[in-house]
Amino acid sequence: MTSARLTRFQQSLKEQHIAAAFIQGKENVFYLTGFRTDPHERIVALIVLPDEEPFLIVPGMEKSLVQKAGWTHTILTYSDTDNPWTVLQDTLSRYTFQGDSLWVEKRLLPLERAEHLQYLFGQKTLVDAEPALMKLRTIKSEEEITVLRKAAQLADLGVQIGVEAIAEGRKEIDILAKIEYELTLKGITEMAFQTTVISGANSADPHGKPGNKAIEHGDLVLFDLGVVLDGYCSDITRTVAYGDLSDSLRKVYDTVLEAQLGAISLCKPGTELGALDRKARSIITEAGYGEWFPHRLGHGLGTDVHELPSINETNQDKLQAGMTFTIEPGIYLPNKGGVRIEDDILITEDGHELLTSYPKELQIIK
Amino acid sequence: MTSARLTRFQQSLKEQHIAAAFIQGKENVFYLTGFRTDPHERIVALIVLPDEEPFLIVPGMEKSLVQKAGWTHTILTYSDTDNPWTVLQDTLSRYTFQGDSLWVEKRLLPLERAEHLQYLFGQKTLVDAEPALMKLRTIKSEEEITVLRKAAQLADLGVQIGVEAIAEGRKEIDILAKIEYELTLKGITEMAFQTTVISGANSADPHGKPGNKAIEHGDLVLFDLGVVLDGYCSDITRTVAYGDLSDSLRKVYDTVLEAQLGAISLCKPGTELGALDRKARSIITEAGYGEWFPHRLGHGLGTDVHELPSINETNQDKLQAGMTFTIEPGIYLPNKGGVRIEDDILITEDGHELLTSYPKELQIIK
Repeated sequence: MTSARLTRFQQSLKEQHIAAAFIQGKENVFYLTGFRTDPHERIVALIVLPDEEPFLIVPGMEKSLVQKAGWTHTILTYSDTDNPWTVLQDTLSRYTFQGDSLWVEKRLLPLERAEHLQYLFGQKTLVDAEPALMKLRTIKSEEEITVLRKAAQLADLGVQIGVEAIAEGRKEIDILAKIEYELTLKGITEMAFQTTVISGANSADPHGKPGNKAIEHGDLVLFDLGVVLDGYCSDITRTVAYGDLSDSLRKVYDTVLEAQLGAISLCKPGTELGALDRKARSIITEAGYGEWFPHRLGHGLGTDVHELPSINETNQDKLQAGMTFTIEPGIYLPNKGGVRIEDDILITEDGHELLTSYPKELQIIK
Repeated sequence: MTSARLTRFQQSLKEQHIAAAFIQGKENVFYLTGFRTDPHERIVALIVLPDEEPFLIVPGMEKSLVQKAGWTHTILTYSDTDNPWTVLQDTLSRYTFQGDSLWVEKRLLPLERAEHLQYLFGQKTLVDAEPALMKLRTIKSEEEITVLRKAAQLADLGVQIGVEAIAEGRKEIDILAKIEYELTLKGITEMAFQTTVISGANSADPHGKPGNKAIEHGDLVLFDLGVVLDGYCSDITRTVAYGDLSDSLRKVYDTVLEAQLGAISLCKPGTELGALDRKARSIITEAGYGEWFPHRLGHGLGTDVHELPSINETNQDKLQAGMTFTIEPGIYLPNKGGVRIEDDILITEDGHELLTSYPKELQIIK
């Protein structure tokens, strides 16, 4: 499936008279080549030319992994004492480049690499490649949807394990350990981001960190987690109550759920993205919690856990079939607790499909 | 301890007549502010001026975490619908800047952000801030060494848990799950990199990935793991044998151990860094395995799991007291197996200290 993507990407280069593309973001390289690695500071890059075979440059010791990933084109390699830019220059000197622009990932390309490219490609104008790439990446194929669905089911499972592990006096971190342990046994070697299990007043922080706090009666317990499966991410949030909940936190829960369902009800091709955020935000604001919903409604989901589209109130783009993203309103009452409910959504031809499906009615764990 | 660092960094700006510094790399921000976060695509940046109070710009919902981390200076915030560059511009417009250069992290600063900065700072020359930063970061303080020592002990523990979990037919991934589970119970919520447990022919790949392969009699089992503790990393590799080992793999093990001990024996202030790599490499080459040691000997270790100094054969810098880095020679025989042995080393006034201490004599698990 990656070779069709690469062909389409190469076609865009041709149409837009771009001399070459230098792609080095982990998720973009994976999307176009099928090879996914975390090279730390070493360069892994894909070079695409309009009328020539594309090639990869990777550290020598990654070569066999590139081949295992199914890459059949040229692989340039360098050792830890080689200068990869010299290796690249040797190969590039064989080509002549048509066009004044070089496509790069402006959001991801470090300035140091940009300066090397400026030199290697004779001061061509560096133009952002991501609009063309994102146009491809934002609309998922059937194969990608199949993987995203499975990744979402593993996120559901993660929440289930976490909820079952809740007990009086049990620490946030112990529950987190149990979730990741069970998911690793299922073959997951990478979470999409740091798993969150926070409770009581800790849950009032939208980016709170799990710690040694023990679960207590009357706490809200918030889970936010996702897995990386075959290069694709999931991302789910559920909030449950341990013991009886105060009326005020119960109202917060009901409001968040109403806002989330309200936004989901608008999910079909043609809806403006900003309308989803505004719908959820208006429900929360009308209930009197507007100032405690400090983030956008959601974000795209795919090879990256945060990608396009951005679901914020000012986004005027339209939903299209094949888009996948999160819807995750939240209300966070300082020193009391927070509620966030998040699902992964796929836009279908005539509406939407929820990829995550763990129950959302308020669970009170006794 | 961060405030003293920030003062020294600000002093370097002054001495070198730099107009301002814009620091946005996760580890550099942590090093200078004590605040460590993974903001995904959102900007978290520290702005340092030679004669003014430094300030941070962060997403609004991170503000309370910045305060918890002990930051007492100004915090600018922005929401998901604000343009952070506009927020920054409003504040910057209050200052006049002396000097033609702006310090940025060329290795880390995305081109898109560089272009915004060029505009905001009136086309000043972007100069690399990392030489000055790395000069600070490379030499660890007593407080940092205390944390690094504890992080290394947790890496030792990870290997011990893994070795104890080895059993006939047990999968690589199950052993990995057990290691991370036990470490999470100790409070570790972030590994320094993806934990590696690979066995048999899989261990012959220097960057091999754990999977469903079961441990079999005659396998080498290679563990490579590290934790992040209070923002500091550890990184250990050990290789053990399950059941009796072939003579050829035994010789590989002995050679790697001899190479590692040889390099360690040179560790004291004043030794050229390249000499460590050349010592290990010559032992491996003389034993006939030169072509199967495809990577540098090691890398610096601190707030980043791969930082300066780079321990490769051409590095002519000298070891100094307070440096911490890995020494990790390896030999990888295709389709047979690989051995790597890695310790974290601290250079002391009169020699060195091994931060990791899990035994290195060949263990044969029966």
